[in-house]
Amino acid sequence: MNKLWTIQQTSFSSSELQHNETVFMQGNGYMGTRGAFEEHYPGEERTTFVHGVFDDVPIVFTELVNFPDWLEMEIILAGERFRMTDGQLLEFERSLDLRNGLLSRNVLWRSPKGLTTRLEFRRFMSLADVHLTCMQVTITALDYNGTLEIRSGLNSQTDNLNYKHWEWMEQGFEDHTLWLKLETRTTKIVVGMAEKLQIADEEKVESDFWDVKSYPTLRLKTTISAAKPLKIEKIAAIFTCRDDGNPMESSKMKLASLPKLAWDELWRPHVFCWEEYWNKSDVVVEGDEKAQLALRFNLYNLLIAASRDDEHVNIGAKTLSGYGYRGHSFWDTEIFILPFFTFTQPDIARNLLSYRYHNLAGAREKAQANGFDGAQFPWESAGSGREVTPTWVPNPNDPTKLIRIWTGDIQIHISADIAYAIWQYWCVTADDTFMAERGAEIILDTARFWASRAEWNAEKEQYEFNNVIGPDENHDHVDNNAYTNYLVAWHLKLAVWLVDWLKNHDLIAANRLFKRLKLNTNDIDRFKEIAEKIYRPFDADTKLIEQFDGFFDLRYIDLKALEGRKVSIQGMLGIEETNQTQVLKQPDVIMLMSLLPDKFDLEVVRKNYEFYTKRTDLSFGSSLGLSIQSIVASRLGKIDQAYDYFLQVAFTDIDNLRGNAEDGIHAASAGGLWQTIVFGFAGLRYDEKGWSLNPQLPPTWKRLAFKFQWRGEEINVDIRPERMEK
Amino acid sequence: MNKLWTIQQTSFSSSELQHNETVFMQGNGYMGTRGAFEEHYPGEERTTFVHGVFDDVPIVFTELVNFPDWLEMEIILAGERFRMTDGQLLEFERSLDLRNGLLSRNVLWRSPKGLTTRLEFRRFMSLADVHLTCMQVTITALDYNGTLEIRSGLNSQTDNLNYKHWEWMEQGFEDHTLWLKLETRTTKIVVGMAEKLQIADEEKVESDFWDVKSYPTLRLKTTISAAKPLKIEKIAAIFTCRDDGNPMESSKMKLASLPKLAWDELWRPHVFCWEEYWNKSDVVVEGDEKAQLALRFNLYNLLIAASRDDEHVNIGAKTLSGYGYRGHSFWDTEIFILPFFTFTQPDIARNLLSYRYHNLAGAREKAQANGFDGAQFPWESAGSGREVTPTWVPNPNDPTKLIRIWTGDIQIHISADIAYAIWQYWCVTADDTFMAERGAEIILDTARFWASRAEWNAEKEQYEFNNVIGPDENHDHVDNNAYTNYLVAWHLKLAVWLVDWLKNHDLIAANRLFKRLKLNTNDIDRFKEIAEKIYRPFDADTKLIEQFDGFFDLRYIDLKALEGRKVSIQGMLGIEETNQTQVLKQPDVIMLMSLLPDKFDLEVVRKNYEFYTKRTDLSFGSSLGLSIQSIVASRLGKIDQAYDYFLQVAFTDIDNLRGNAEDGIHAASAGGLWQTIVFGFAGLRYDEKGWSLNPQLPPTWKRLAFKFQWRGEEINVDIRPERMEK
Repeated sequence: MNKLWTIQQTSFSSSELQHNETVFMQGNGYMGTRGAFEEHYPGEERTTFVHGVFDDVPIVFTELVNFPDWLEMEIILAGERFRMTDGQLLEFERSLDLRNGLLSRNVLWRSPKGLTTRLEFRRFMSLADVHLTCMQVTITALDYNGTLEIRSGLNSQTDNLNYKHWEWMEQGFEDHTLWLKLETRTTKIVVGMAEKLQIADEEKVESDFWDVKSYPTLRLKTTISAAKPLKIEKIAAIFTCRDDGNPMESSKMKLASLPKLAWDELWRPHVFCWEEYWNKSDVVVEGDEKAQLALRFNLYNLLIAASRDDEHVNIGAKTLSGYGYRGHSFWDTEIFILPFFTFTQPDIARNLLSYRYHNLAGAREKAQANGFDGAQFPWESAGSGREVTPTWVPNPNDPTKLIRIWTGDIQIHISADIAYAIWQYWCVTADDTFMAERGAEIILDTARFWASRAEWNAEKEQYEFNNVIGPDENHDHVDNNAYTNYLVAWHLKLAVWLVDWLKNHDLIAANRLFKRLKLNTNDIDRFKEIAEKIYRPFDADTKLIEQFDGFFDLRYIDLKALEGRKVSIQGMLGIEETNQTQVLKQPDVIMLMSLLPDKFDLEVVRKNYEFYTKRTDLSFGSSLGLSIQSIVASRLGKIDQAYDYFLQVAFTDIDNLRGNAEDGIHAASAGGLWQTIVFGFAGLRYDEKGWSLNPQLPPTWKRLAFKFQWRGEEINVDIRPERMEK
Repeated sequence: MNKLWTIQQTSFSSSELQHNETVFMQGNGYMGTRGAFEEHYPGEERTTFVHGVFDDVPIVFTELVNFPDWLEMEIILAGERFRMTDGQLLEFERSLDLRNGLLSRNVLWRSPKGLTTRLEFRRFMSLADVHLTCMQVTITALDYNGTLEIRSGLNSQTDNLNYKHWEWMEQGFEDHTLWLKLETRTTKIVVGMAEKLQIADEEKVESDFWDVKSYPTLRLKTTISAAKPLKIEKIAAIFTCRDDGNPMESSKMKLASLPKLAWDELWRPHVFCWEEYWNKSDVVVEGDEKAQLALRFNLYNLLIAASRDDEHVNIGAKTLSGYGYRGHSFWDTEIFILPFFTFTQPDIARNLLSYRYHNLAGAREKAQANGFDGAQFPWESAGSGREVTPTWVPNPNDPTKLIRIWTGDIQIHISADIAYAIWQYWCVTADDTFMAERGAEIILDTARFWASRAEWNAEKEQYEFNNVIGPDENHDHVDNNAYTNYLVAWHLKLAVWLVDWLKNHDLIAANRLFKRLKLNTNDIDRFKEIAEKIYRPFDADTKLIEQFDGFFDLRYIDLKALEGRKVSIQGMLGIEETNQTQVLKQPDVIMLMSLLPDKFDLEVVRKNYEFYTKRTDLSFGSSLGLSIQSIVASRLGKIDQAYDYFLQVAFTDIDNLRGNAEDGIHAASAGGLWQTIVFGFAGLRYDEKGWSLNPQLPPTWKRLAFKFQWRGEEINVDIRPERMEK
């Protein structure tokens, strides 16, 4: 076991099932499965989600649908059902190999009747053939001969937190293989699944098919002899009509095309794909083994979350790893997650940005519904690209009351965040084709949205954005949020520059685009004028930027005095009351400085960092805040602080620091972690002209090495502080 | 077939499944099952509900839980699955015998491959042993020999409109019988079910148990020979921890105690129980066969909806027959349904009133939460007796918007309605024990609620009830609703009278009760004073009662001009706008006059009837309105109008007159129908002194006969107009 690559669990507790299901998550960019056990336990939350398979649901509008469970396997040993919670668990060890996503479990179990069995489970979700999952179980009876019975079904009545999404269509069985055809209730996405279950090298196997409608099940029965291991192999295939014309037939064919026992044949290309992945995306830290492992754990979770070939899916705030946010995507993708892909796997970044391009229709619809021009991207986005932020959610303290969620209405900065990510992608990749064909249309049509959304304050002679929510969601309905105003100004300038760039790049295509977008020189002039006259708060004396109009007048709360609390400030005071204080849920002005480092000199950054950090609920506010704090602390040379934040980000899910890891991986936190390394400790800066490094490593670190792709070239960064000091 | 007792369907259409499931409803007062077919069809809504088995659910708080389906049976004939929608349906007939709840179906079916089979289905839910259901299928191959396969499982993943409530606990199989143990997710009600499946007189039956977790299934396989009928019998047992200490064991034992084939043994006592029921509750109409049948259909649905021995359950607004109102109970029980039971099955009426008694805790909690004394009954009540009216429901036209439901907050008249029903029960039965031990506590503690809820208007020197909803829910947040004010005054006077009655009845017990309720002479004086000074609108000139303050100033809408519409006025105008008009959803002042006939002389009734009837949305407002209109029309001698209303009530569900019969039986309408006969056409009047009749029958009726129980005596009413005229 390589401890720099392996997440390990050495004791089993039935009370920590859900957190560990998140930690032992597997996936391959097409689908993801939580680290549940093959056999069922009460309190588990086993899910398999497949990218893009959403269905309607009350309150949160749409959610990723929990698939029939391909993991399920019941093992009955000499008439006793295997359960780690029954009898005696003599040995237990589980590990996830981050190099290749292999999940292994070794168990020595004494049954209630006293029979001892060794069980070794292994499984992976193929990265080489993303429709396939493989499982192998080796069972050795140590002190008895008896019957062995294996049951494994595909349950099409799987639910999402008790809510059912599947309509059963068809099922069948042939030659060790069962199959199932399903459809989502409202979105009518057809799914085909098949599974093949066999015992290796065993002739006397009795095989049954239990043709129970909606829950077809295979049963194998044989005898097991003391000290003679038996190996069981289960392969499952999943297709959907999103990727295949006949998903049920394809599932069957896929399994039929495999050799009798397929593990070895499927394992080799899978490992090869993983090597390719890590070769580009690994980050090596020497001198800090815990940090190294946690870093890889987070990158692993980003890699398994991203589709390599589907331009119509995004990454959810909790990846494919849990019910949190129901698979919806936020600005988390563009601002927190994308840099990792843009710099190390630009093809994936391109897919993710293309998702926004393909969903421009939804963004235009939203702008229009709100009375604006152009494209206004939804705060939460899922299958259709329409706004899917819940408007009302039940109050957890009083089910007769509801809470109004305003982010879908007025957290508008996401449209500038997307423009920012496109610009970043273009800087790093020089992918002019993407910019010309897709990126430009997004940047220009969202700029047009800004132009219609901006409000002219005749008295102050400035453009304003009133009634918004900035990154700091503790304060809603605010006027002139600094992050929003500065970033929109930047966005509009980008749009103006882009118009010229497009003309230079391909005049005919550019004019075609302008015509299609009905964009004329008046519009460009207006972009320019608004960009110049947007109100950007800045106090030249204190060098402070006021987060929004009136922020400085709000009540100050000494967060230090409240250390040790286990809930957020909003949880303590309530929404309304928190709105009246200076407590931030996450950095807002600091966030802006992290995104546009060239716009603010160090002294301004320092003043604002000192002012806002102590006003930010970093422990229980948003998990998005800590990585930004770390990056900016690095920039200010506060490496101890930066490292402290880094650790909190790195162990968010492994150690369940925020108490909600069971809902799924904190994807923005994982993406932010990569940024704390690359933009923080390594000090990478870049723009359309080139890149530079300015490393300052945490004291214990002996080496920091990573690669990135710069305009088709692979850059190897290898920082060894000892050498630097020489 | 007796056409005065049989609901018949002679053609099958897969597009009318849900309406017919309501029409062919079966039940036995313990449980109810919609008239779905044994084999599954897309678009069906098959449910089995058991009284008192509620579980939590978002938005509507709690709902009756849909049980694993005991009907399910898949029939595979020579390898072809029987489906009326496949192949050719040569004959189809279905009938429900209202005398005994027997549901029969006769089908002649030609399979897609051309094989012809006759299938005869029969089933009933035992009234003699309410935990049992029986099913018999006789299959005759007409033109082939082949295999016959029967599959029947108990699916514990049954859902309520896609929402799952069951936790699987245990399952097993022995001797033709499978069993299942389940628990509701949040209310933790344990349920045991068992089913026994056999083919009669057949030796070569291969029997399998498919032990799929959560969906245990029995399979029988045999051969079928041309022209030789095969009879299949299936018996299911259902127990819950509400009625049994070990529901799973009891289900198994119940089936084990039956003979090999049990239909005949179970049928005889079942029929006997039904005879007893009808002997007391039937209403005979001669000269109007359609009306006779529809009348019995409605009474049948009341009889199967009411528990005979459970004091802790009520009757839902849609009985146990559908998802409408999720099994919640309203004033519908006390005002519309109870009279039928009070007069014909007083033991059942006592149970239903005891339900309110046992739930006084919830009513007191509600009063206290609202800042009042005493007991305020919930507008919607379910398992716990707490308020379960949804506060917010999604707007069907825009899922991002919600509608606030105010009835749970301010439709307060239900507490007086319950007092009224207790008084009525006591008048009719002279059940002093019930009044002293249970009824009085309700009447007095709700009176105390009224005393604290009443508002003193110093200027007008009157008590008022402001910000309420009356029976007419088209108008919310109204002041001084006439129905509420008059009925509360009546209620408070009843309370004052009751105090004396209690003292006379049993002074020691009375004082014990007053002490427990902390009720002293000041309270009684206050009841008296408020009762006298409650504002009761009445215009001596016009003889009109204003429905609430300002009603006369609202906009008049000529409903006649809108005839032929297919939606309610509220559906046309919206809630806010309808609030501004004089359109009533259902009678309000007229309702009051129907309940307290002695308080208003005929001239007053006539004036108000004429004024309000043309302002009431009788076709698409509330289904509760028509029976009241009919009763009052009878009183005014408008027999044609009364009969017209009567017909609309009688055929509400059979002919799906309101377009929502698929949601379940309109129970208040069914109860109101009995009142149109007894209080309307027969002109029954009663009070604590005695009863009288004043019959006026619709012209075509040759005879009207019914019985009622008056203080332990059975009264036979037999009205034959021809004789009367002589």
